[in-house]
Amino acid sequence: MKSMTEQNRPLDVVILAAGQGTRMKSALPKVIHSVAGRPMVAWAVKAAQELGARNIVVVTGHGAEQVEAKVQQPGVAFARQEKQLGTGDAFLSGVAALSERDADILVLYGDTPLLRAETLRDLLADHRERQSAMTVLTGELPDATGYGRIVRGEQGDVERIVEQKDASETERSIGEFNSGVYVFDAQASELARRITNDNKAGEYYLTDLLGLYRGEGAHVRAFKLADPDEVLGANDRVGLAKLEGIFRQRINEQHLRGGVAIPAPDTVFIEDTVTIGRDVTLEPGVILRGQTRIADNVTVGAYSVVTDCVLGEGVNVKPHSVLEGAEVGAGSDVGPFARLRPGSVLGAGVHIGNFVETKNAKLDTGVKAGHLAYLGDVTIGAETNVGAGTIVANFDGVNKHQSTVGAGVFIGSNSTIIAPRTVGDAAFIAAGSAVHDDIPEGAMAVARGKQRNLEGWSKRYWGGMGEKVERKLPWLAGWLKRQ
Amino acid sequence: MKSMTEQNRPLDVVILAAGQGTRMKSALPKVIHSVAGRPMVAWAVKAAQELGARNIVVVTGHGAEQVEAKVQQPGVAFARQEKQLGTGDAFLSGVAALSERDADILVLYGDTPLLRAETLRDLLADHRERQSAMTVLTGELPDATGYGRIVRGEQGDVERIVEQKDASETERSIGEFNSGVYVFDAQASELARRITNDNKAGEYYLTDLLGLYRGEGAHVRAFKLADPDEVLGANDRVGLAKLEGIFRQRINEQHLRGGVAIPAPDTVFIEDTVTIGRDVTLEPGVILRGQTRIADNVTVGAYSVVTDCVLGEGVNVKPHSVLEGAEVGAGSDVGPFARLRPGSVLGAGVHIGNFVETKNAKLDTGVKAGHLAYLGDVTIGAETNVGAGTIVANFDGVNKHQSTVGAGVFIGSNSTIIAPRTVGDAAFIAAGSAVHDDIPEGAMAVARGKQRNLEGWSKRYWGGMGEKVERKLPWLAGWLKRQ
Amino acid sequence: MKSMTEQNRPLDVVILAAGQGTRMKSALPKVIHSVAGRPMVAWAVKAAQELGARNIVVVTGHGAEQVEAKVQQPGVAFARQEKQLGTGDAFLSGVAALSERDADILVLYGDTPLLRAETLRDLLADHRERQSAMTVLTGELPDATGYGRIVRGEQGDVERIVEQKDASETERSIGEFNSGVYVFDAQASELARRITNDNKAGEYYLTDLLGLYRGEGAHVRAFKLADPDEVLGANDRVGLAKLEGIFRQRINEQHLRGGVAIPAPDTVFIEDTVTIGRDVTLEPGVILRGQTRIADNVTVGAYSVVTDCVLGEGVNVKPHSVLEGAEVGAGSDVGPFARLRPGSVLGAGVHIGNFVETKNAKLDTGVKAGHLAYLGDVTIGAETNVGAGTIVANFDGVNKHQSTVGAGVFIGSNSTIIAPRTVGDAAFIAAGSAVHDDIPEGAMAVARGKQRNLEGWSKRYWGGMGEKVERKLPWLAGWLKRQ
Repeated sequence: MKSMTEQNRPLDVVILAAGQGTRMKSALPKVIHSVAGRPMVAWAVKAAQELGARNIVVVTGHGAEQVEAKVQQPGVAFARQEKQLGTGDAFLSGVAALSERDADILVLYGDTPLLRAETLRDLLADHRERQSAMTVLTGELPDATGYGRIVRGEQGDVERIVEQKDASETERSIGEFNSGVYVFDAQASELARRITNDNKAGEYYLTDLLGLYRGEGAHVRAFKLADPDEVLGANDRVGLAKLEGIFRQRINEQHLRGGVAIPAPDTVFIEDTVTIGRDVTLEPGVILRGQTRIADNVTVGAYSVVTDCVLGEGVNVKPHSVLEGAEVGAGSDVGPFARLRPGSVLGAGVHIGNFVETKNAKLDTGVKAGHLAYLGDVTIGAETNVGAGTIVANFDGVNKHQSTVGAGVFIGSNSTIIAPRTVGDAAFIAAGSAVHDDIPEGAMAVARGKQRNLEGWSKRYWGGMGEKVERKLPWLAGWLKRQ
Repeated sequence: MKSMTEQNRPLDVVILAAGQGTRMKSALPKVIHSVAGRPMVAWAVKAAQELGARNIVVVTGHGAEQVEAKVQQPGVAFARQEKQLGTGDAFLSGVAALSERDADILVLYGDTPLLRAETLRDLLADHRERQSAMTVLTGELPDATGYGRIVRGEQGDVERIVEQKDASETERSIGEFNSGVYVFDAQASELARRITNDNKAGEYYLTDLLGLYRGEGAHVRAFKLADPDEVLGANDRVGLAKLEGIFRQRINEQHLRGGVAIPAPDTVFIEDTVTIGRDVTLEPGVILRGQTRIADNVTVGAYSVVTDCVLGEGVNVKPHSVLEGAEVGAGSDVGPFARLRPGSVLGAGVHIGNFVETKNAKLDTGVKAGHLAYLGDVTIGAETNVGAGTIVANFDGVNKHQSTVGAGVFIGSNSTIIAPRTVGDAAFIAAGSAVHDDIPEGAMAVARGKQRNLEGWSKRYWGGMGEKVERKLPWLAGWLKRQ
Repeated sequence: MKSMTEQNRPLDVVILAAGQGTRMKSALPKVIHSVAGRPMVAWAVKAAQELGARNIVVVTGHGAEQVEAKVQQPGVAFARQEKQLGTGDAFLSGVAALSERDADILVLYGDTPLLRAETLRDLLADHRERQSAMTVLTGELPDATGYGRIVRGEQGDVERIVEQKDASETERSIGEFNSGVYVFDAQASELARRITNDNKAGEYYLTDLLGLYRGEGAHVRAFKLADPDEVLGANDRVGLAKLEGIFRQRINEQHLRGGVAIPAPDTVFIEDTVTIGRDVTLEPGVILRGQTRIADNVTVGAYSVVTDCVLGEGVNVKPHSVLEGAEVGAGSDVGPFARLRPGSVLGAGVHIGNFVETKNAKLDTGVKAGHLAYLGDVTIGAETNVGAGTIVANFDGVNKHQSTVGAGVFIGSNSTIIAPRTVGDAAFIAAGSAVHDDIPEGAMAVARGKQRNLEGWSKRYWGGMGEKVERKLPWLAGWLKRQ
């Protein structure tokens, strides 16, 4: 029978993250290698937070500064394990950082990012309902070679955990294995002091707590994972890539079930921070990152990369677009080959075409910039047409300047607007102009040279090129002869 | 023995497509979700057409207008199933729309797009050769849990179809399952009226026709699929993605066997409407859609998206190009980062380079536009060289205008041709010109300002910028000191 | 016991590459279809070279000229098999091209590119240590249907190789199969003359050497592959794609184990000629080709294609970039949508942004070209800022010209530099200028028209457009009414 007292016991979480991971072949310690957009250890911290842990202690060792820098946040403490003397020692380093000794203690690892908070919640509930002193999170595999095996005793209690090398023939056939994740009651921090390093490796093993608890007559139980993949760890980058693949599948399936069309989910990459509405289509190769929020009926075209963006209802992002830190209003279309950079705020029904870059640009409803343009540090009013090849020249070599273009303006092709500039509503800029003065409302600005045609010029020009024309430009050679 | 009469019996097809598919989490009814470029139900219609069906009736219900709008075409009729009273009722709704009652009736579904016309042709041939009254299309799986199982009687006739929930231990071990696809002889429309809804669900089951036929002493037989995947349906978007993957593999294998090199077929997406010649290479990530026709010896570079295009012999589309509605002449090369839009017609040996967009543009043999250009609504003669940054300014704010550029023209870089404009053969446009007048044959147009050099200007300019120069532009700060 | 003499025997390699491969549906003979960036037969040649072979003879037949053209290199001889009379005949054609008869002879194939030099080295060592006369490279499969089976006799010697069609029930259950790869001692060239074509197909089978050797009382042994995939061949393009996939996995795993982060290895394509440092990240869809060398701490962004490039320490290539034949200095960043073409040499800390192309361009430390530019045939000094839309117009219609831009120059947006041009240090080019004269150090060049504002122009312009303005440009129509 569960007691409310038990249910309400606080939870402290100790995350073991001191290992080096030499097989990563990296200057970075293992646990800060990224999986699915976060350092591995950050997934353990996130799970602990979702469990409502009172204290979270990350035990660091190799590359401690780097790990701490990556995980630093309110509510997360660090404990340094000075020497790598084993998991038992790491655990003691962790509990030493806890000021109170009244909580259940959950031990997690910095390199098993697939473990879900839901699973841990079930583990914890089981631990408390059955009033266990220690609960081992286990998994079951057809062949568990390499893992510590779970030897069950009366009433299903865990009697021993036997390592591969020490296992008898019979024990080797056991499929239930130790994940290394445990919940302990509050005694653990005291009991753990009694772990010795009296073994071949001379290390302190956290597993020894099992015997110590049983020596006290306490119940040690196992809670078996439905999906043993949840405790997969990564020791090298092949393993990391495998975790990444499982994460990808997990996240994509969740979006598929939620109403997102993803015809080629093996090629689509969505970080877990992204939210997506219904009847959204993600074409092959799409990458969605960070705090991206996508409304209903959006299409994100093939190979587009969208980071920290808000895409409104019905937005159509065409293939090969790269969007970062932008807001795109409902019904707008963007791309292909569009680049929206941070500070781009597009109203409704805006059209951004190919080879167009926006940065810190506010484009009101219905603005059109269809081709080859750079719009930086500029505000553009509604329904303004930005011609092909338009550049807002925002930089003077040292400072960036802000420009304002009114509504209903027509910017002719290949124009340059030299910031800081103000262009009034309904102004008209002649194609090819370099606008170096402000333009009043309704005025046309012409800032280009006048055309002169020099007749007969080509005959002299190409004729003067000599025999190369004959060889390289047969059409012109023929034309020259005909003149 | 088959009789010619039987072989020549007409065929009517009833396609059941009335379901909602709530697990799609979509505003669209299930059967119009797309797989491999077509709404699912359209695949059933296509198969029926390939069989030479006399009448095709699509039974709609949920989202009937949406479904009908997607499938609307000559030779396809619709029948509304007003209430979802089961497959038997849906079938009756369908046959009610048939004016004649002399045909074999094939029942298909709007959500099993993988079923091939060839398979159905074999099914039909078997039905007619063996003079069966009803033939059930079946499949065989090692474990058919969830499906209705086929119970065979004397001479292999189908005795019963037993649903999962009603199946005995022995029946559950049967691997042959009911696909739900049937061919009936012409009696079916009469017999189906005798189906009752005397069952727990209160529904009319089309499967009941089996008992009714057998009650008449008629032969009900099974025709077993070689590949049970052909009758896979989709109930949610995970299922849709799975169908998409099988389609992709099917289509890609067909092209591979036909002589197309596809080194990474899992990343290449080809709609079934596309035709491809021999010794064509499709690099990773290529997407081919619509009425695209590709001649021999073409290469389509990585991540290029080609829709409704005709690519001539030996064309080289470089990576990251997006082509739609374009014709590309033999030996032309396009990209990377090229965008050909509808109405682009490229002659032989045309070169389109990076960041170049064409739209409604006819480029004659050997035209070169290598860099950063927009060619819209323009005809360009043979061997003309389009400089980097050239814009054909085709839009005046309301109308698009057409321009004509002759053969052998040299368009200098960063020029703007303001439409409607005519540029004569062998004309020469000075770099940086905004061409606002026509240019006669062989003339040079200069339409830019004259250069003035203001000596000593930079010293004053950067000096006037103050200490920021020191901080941000150390090189210039040093230079200033040296002046 | 091995003898030093044996160890030092020379090695000749005969590569059988005469087949047509009709199932490739190609104008090219089978063995020159590419896998992992090389023609299949080139992989066999490479393996032979890595073994230190004295002579390498490639036996050609179908498409002999094409094959020879692809493989032509010092140390590789060709022998033509005039008629396709079987492998025995092909072998004899090959040995006929060998001037000396004192070597071990290794027989390889032009269509099994996965076979590793390490494996062949082990095969050869085994052959020599055991003083075998002939050693068959074998593999083992659970079901070897279709292959010739290895029948072992006393002491494990190979007694017979029995083809599928001739095999008894018992022999068909044998899993060890003949790969077709053999090492022979020097007698083989003599013995092979005794092979007859006294069989149904009328062909000369190289396998018959087994019986001939045994007839001489010599030892024929087998050397079993650890991984039977190494001898997979390709008969059609489905097979080719499968080989490609295995290669990809092999190469990617090697890089993963070496310290490269590849979160989605199934989508990343790396040729075996590429070298990569530690803590490099390859995002999804990256393609690395040719003589590319990547230093530590580089990131290559999604879908970028890098060919024959040198990327320095810490370089950041952003998504959707295409780099070929370029050197990128340490700490530079490139892309997204950048195109570096051959002859691009970027110093340290250079910034190349979106829609920028460089070709034969030397950019010194800290040069910035952030947007929409073409830099061709130009040298640019340190810290120069290249404005958006800058074009170096290097082509006069026949010749390319070289320009030089100094250090600390400010090139205003939408400028055109008309080559050949020299721009002095610390010069300043006004935005929109077409620079047709050289610019002295520290001078500002202005080469554009002066701006005129025509007040009230828009009212007349749009008013003159008639009712279309009302329909298409409601904002302007409203504005017009208010004037």
